[in-house]
Amino acid sequence: MAFLIKIALGQMEVVSGRPDLNTRTMLDMIGQARRMDADMVIFPEMAVPGYLLGDTWEQRSFLRDCEEYGRRVVAASSGLCVLFGNVGVDWNRTGDDGRVRKYNAFFVAQNGSLCGGDNFPYPFRIKSLQPNYREFEDTRHFYSLRKLAPELGKSAEDLSQPVVINIAGRQVRLGCILCEDGWSDDYSFKPMAALCRNGPVDLFVNISSSPFTLGKNNKRNRVFSRQVGETGVPLVYVNNVGIQNNGKTVYTFDGCSTVYNSGGEAVACCPAFTPQLKAVDLDLDAGGGPPPVTVPDGRETDSIYQALSYGISRFLPSIGIERVVIGISGGIDSAVSAALYTRVLGPDNVLLANMPSIYNSRTTRGLADRLARNLGCLYTVIPIQEAVEYTIGQISRTPVVSLREGREFNLNVTSFMAENIQARDRSARILAGLAAAFGGGFTCNANKSEMTVGYSTLYGDLAGFFAALADLWKHQVYDLAGYLNEHVYRGEVIPREIMELVPSAELSPEQAVDQGKGDPIVYPYHDYLFKAFVEHWNRATPEDILEWYDRGVLEEKLGCRPGLVKELFGGPEEFIGDLERWWKAYTGMAVAKRIQAPPVLAVSRRVFGFDHREAQNGPYFTAGYLELKKKLLSGKSCEPGDGR
Amino acid sequence: MAFLIKIALGQMEVVSGRPDLNTRTMLDMIGQARRMDADMVIFPEMAVPGYLLGDTWEQRSFLRDCEEYGRRVVAASSGLCVLFGNVGVDWNRTGDDGRVRKYNAFFVAQNGSLCGGDNFPYPFRIKSLQPNYREFEDTRHFYSLRKLAPELGKSAEDLSQPVVINIAGRQVRLGCILCEDGWSDDYSFKPMAALCRNGPVDLFVNISSSPFTLGKNNKRNRVFSRQVGETGVPLVYVNNVGIQNNGKTVYTFDGCSTVYNSGGEAVACCPAFTPQLKAVDLDLDAGGGPPPVTVPDGRETDSIYQALSYGISRFLPSIGIERVVIGISGGIDSAVSAALYTRVLGPDNVLLANMPSIYNSRTTRGLADRLARNLGCLYTVIPIQEAVEYTIGQISRTPVVSLREGREFNLNVTSFMAENIQARDRSARILAGLAAAFGGGFTCNANKSEMTVGYSTLYGDLAGFFAALADLWKHQVYDLAGYLNEHVYRGEVIPREIMELVPSAELSPEQAVDQGKGDPIVYPYHDYLFKAFVEHWNRATPEDILEWYDRGVLEEKLGCRPGLVKELFGGPEEFIGDLERWWKAYTGMAVAKRIQAPPVLAVSRRVFGFDHREAQNGPYFTAGYLELKKKLLSGKSCEPGDGR
Repeated sequence: MAFLIKIALGQMEVVSGRPDLNTRTMLDMIGQARRMDADMVIFPEMAVPGYLLGDTWEQRSFLRDCEEYGRRVVAASSGLCVLFGNVGVDWNRTGDDGRVRKYNAFFVAQNGSLCGGDNFPYPFRIKSLQPNYREFEDTRHFYSLRKLAPELGKSAEDLSQPVVINIAGRQVRLGCILCEDGWSDDYSFKPMAALCRNGPVDLFVNISSSPFTLGKNNKRNRVFSRQVGETGVPLVYVNNVGIQNNGKTVYTFDGCSTVYNSGGEAVACCPAFTPQLKAVDLDLDAGGGPPPVTVPDGRETDSIYQALSYGISRFLPSIGIERVVIGISGGIDSAVSAALYTRVLGPDNVLLANMPSIYNSRTTRGLADRLARNLGCLYTVIPIQEAVEYTIGQISRTPVVSLREGREFNLNVTSFMAENIQARDRSARILAGLAAAFGGGFTCNANKSEMTVGYSTLYGDLAGFFAALADLWKHQVYDLAGYLNEHVYRGEVIPREIMELVPSAELSPEQAVDQGKGDPIVYPYHDYLFKAFVEHWNRATPEDILEWYDRGVLEEKLGCRPGLVKELFGGPEEFIGDLERWWKAYTGMAVAKRIQAPPVLAVSRRVFGFDHREAQNGPYFTAGYLELKKKLLSGKSCEPGDGR
Repeated sequence: MAFLIKIALGQMEVVSGRPDLNTRTMLDMIGQARRMDADMVIFPEMAVPGYLLGDTWEQRSFLRDCEEYGRRVVAASSGLCVLFGNVGVDWNRTGDDGRVRKYNAFFVAQNGSLCGGDNFPYPFRIKSLQPNYREFEDTRHFYSLRKLAPELGKSAEDLSQPVVINIAGRQVRLGCILCEDGWSDDYSFKPMAALCRNGPVDLFVNISSSPFTLGKNNKRNRVFSRQVGETGVPLVYVNNVGIQNNGKTVYTFDGCSTVYNSGGEAVACCPAFTPQLKAVDLDLDAGGGPPPVTVPDGRETDSIYQALSYGISRFLPSIGIERVVIGISGGIDSAVSAALYTRVLGPDNVLLANMPSIYNSRTTRGLADRLARNLGCLYTVIPIQEAVEYTIGQISRTPVVSLREGREFNLNVTSFMAENIQARDRSARILAGLAAAFGGGFTCNANKSEMTVGYSTLYGDLAGFFAALADLWKHQVYDLAGYLNEHVYRGEVIPREIMELVPSAELSPEQAVDQGKGDPIVYPYHDYLFKAFVEHWNRATPEDILEWYDRGVLEEKLGCRPGLVKELFGGPEEFIGDLERWWKAYTGMAVAKRIQAPPVLAVSRRVFGFDHREAQNGPYFTAGYLELKKKLLSGKSCEPGDGR
């Protein structure tokens, strides 16, 4: 026997903090679903308010507003079943912070009424597993099923009951779960298993608001497919598209809503980063549906390009920016940034500025010029040499008076200070002024490698309204450059020489590219060392690194090219000197710089900003590290910092 | 019968992220306590690792390090009982994030061994209530007793057992709790009551790492005193001193460790912001001890001065800064900043810089000069007019080329843009350069009122390594100025005219102080309006404000001067225009600015930074607000932004 139901996946763009706009989108999609004769339309987690809202949850008037808009969605459910995420408020109870109690809630509405209140304390379901790692902070605002249960003298399992609805005269038992509830591997409580034990369940529905992370969709596919296989119950996963942010970090949401049949096979999948209402016929008796589809699994650089261009295209209008100024040096980061923004905004909305000093080679100035011509952007060349000399003169020649002693003296500007003066002159003096006059913002072109160790100048090259490349390691920036030429522009818009040139800041004679001089970071090694500090799930410290080095497994553990470590370092002393230099930078001055860095567009599973929380506590070396170092240096020295 | 025990309160300075240093401090204090013949020495929560560490908890080598240093403390417990906080690691279990499981733990050691493993799954006690509001994020890293209990098939109450130790041949049952466990009013689980039910308990020990917040000590005293009165069991509260930070926000810890007798009276109290090992004799049979003491309760401005000067004095050396540059305009904020830093660092380590343009009046330039002379600092005057004109000329005269169309055009610099160019010229060009040449950092003198609405320039007056005044409303800055003259310097170092002058940025003829022109913020009203947006526990939005206005209770709700609203606004239209202007600023551009703002020194119960989480989502007006507005404007207009 077949019991076919038509399910519409409402993969909508959620605008965070705008219940008014989101409700309008939902009402539109409900209308479309009705015209498709859908039995059910499903919207994402927190579809009404949005998910990343900072502490807006502490505004009672905002909560009332979400409830009001939620009621409008419920009222629109005549003739079909509407499933959606919203905040669920219990005005009579408090959370652990003493404020009114809020739940991350799953609402099921049919014919203008809410379903599921018969076997649960509320007319909605609530999230059981609340992620509290990376950027997630559900526990800060929402009360979970695991906390509610003991309060009512019950277990979380007792409260895990299906929501029963009627479709075409038949009962359908829905297993309603929210996002993390489907990722229970690391939790002692398993929501899907609990629902099955209180079942039977005819259909699992996972509504999510799950940000894009490189490789996450593959993992989700494996995890969900396995779980569905175990339960034998089909599952519909609905995720939103759009961008949301928590201030320091901007996340894209790729959607990729998917339907799994009872065998755990994907039978329908919405495209990434595209709003869509997709109807799927599912046979709840046979557990079948359409034939299996292949869930798209792009190459790494493919996904990165998609996420970045989508992120830029959605974030800019959300903060009212239509045009940008980009400082281009003739180097790789600014070239990729220019090519990316030009693709999104069009060449007439991108003003490229080359700002040479005496240290900028004819080579890079020429490359900047060629890049600008290839892209057809607006272009200007504003030299900084005069202003920089004026500043150095003013600082070093204006007397400082000691008012206590009456004596006068002068300050000295070293060549290192002059490097930073150049960087700040470009950004805070020229680019900020240009951006205002151009009616837009100026970009920060920093990559993740330099962000990690603070190889940048505050109010200089670290400034800008948005750091779209700052979650990419340097080698990923190069890959993206090649991808842009080959697949996006289908031509060499980024001159090949830019990719071949030694990376350099060109702020002093020590960084002359034509003599092959450049950055102190050796990217093929340090990219991977820094990644171990930042991205490894169990974060690596010098103790781990030195232990791996000592055991001869470092390259394998880091994932860099075998043989590289021996080529780069003469022995333990050199190796340790390098390790300590960068660890001190990463946990020292770089933290101070990141505190004042622009928002970063997230790509990886560990992004600087709210996802990578850190204190300005300074470098630390564990006792275990100091001991191992002593051993490796045969007792030569064991205090950190003696390396070189 | 009397059973006197001598308890040493180890109110130590905890250095976050430095188990090595903290262990050294603890071993020193244990030695002192032994020489005092103390039976017991008590150290704060997380005494070994520190409390605010960002995600350092994800480094397994750091956890091993904490365990190793913890063992050294345990080993030093011969002949006395040592109570201390450290991370407790269960290497065989995982947390909800899949990483190794960590507890915020309370260790009790005696004669080289840990006590309390007989009636608990671990040889340490763990925190039950994990704060997850404001800056706190215990739940992100630590597994709580409330989560552990169901896993073991028990309740949190079952697991709440006293730790039994022996002192002078007698059993003493300790109720070991950690910080928030003593603040259970908003939680359904009450750790102290649970311990009493499984008791009896002879002595409660609350080890804390509790940051200073204006007025919090008074509240703590009331809460703890009441709870002790209810249980009839004496309580020892030990809190650390020092500073700790989470990047965006720097917290001071005031210690104020207190002993309460069984009647709930404070009988001993360590001084605020001072490391101290204080011995107290407590009679566990009679529940008595020394006679009651008065817990210090300073005036508001008194406490603010103490916290700020302590915070500056401890934060600067922690990040390696010994000298500062301060831009002084002749206005109130920079004057207070100069007086404060000079008090902490001494006049020879403070370089004051006045940077006049044509808009700076002779009045304020003279006042800056007098301030510098009164303080006896290093002083320099660096005019910015030439550089600003050069920048404006360069931006407006350098042609921009459209490479697609071949045409050239010029950009226009408006007077508003020129204001920001001045502000950036001062900070990013002069102060940053001066600070480097002086060998220090430059301060950000922003106050909380301007931080709230972004009345400042990014890379301009919002720049600096530290914003020590940015948690003070403008009226608190004035109070502090008076306090500095009267109580700290005992003389008029901050010229009275600075306090009487209209507050102004002096960036255009529209802000001429001698004509009484200045900031658009009316501090006696807006300070309180902004406070309602930011600091009210249930955050106020325009809906609440308008409702209060409509009901005639606005001044009472905000806490500002009665009659003020009527004086300022002619009617609802003007009132609404003003309200929407500042709400849009607070939730709009100001968010973008705060993302890149320097670390703020915390004073209030809501500090910008990690304590005030926010997304760059733009302004929003609830349906309830729009309706009320329509009513008040008699249907004139209801879209936001039409006010003025």
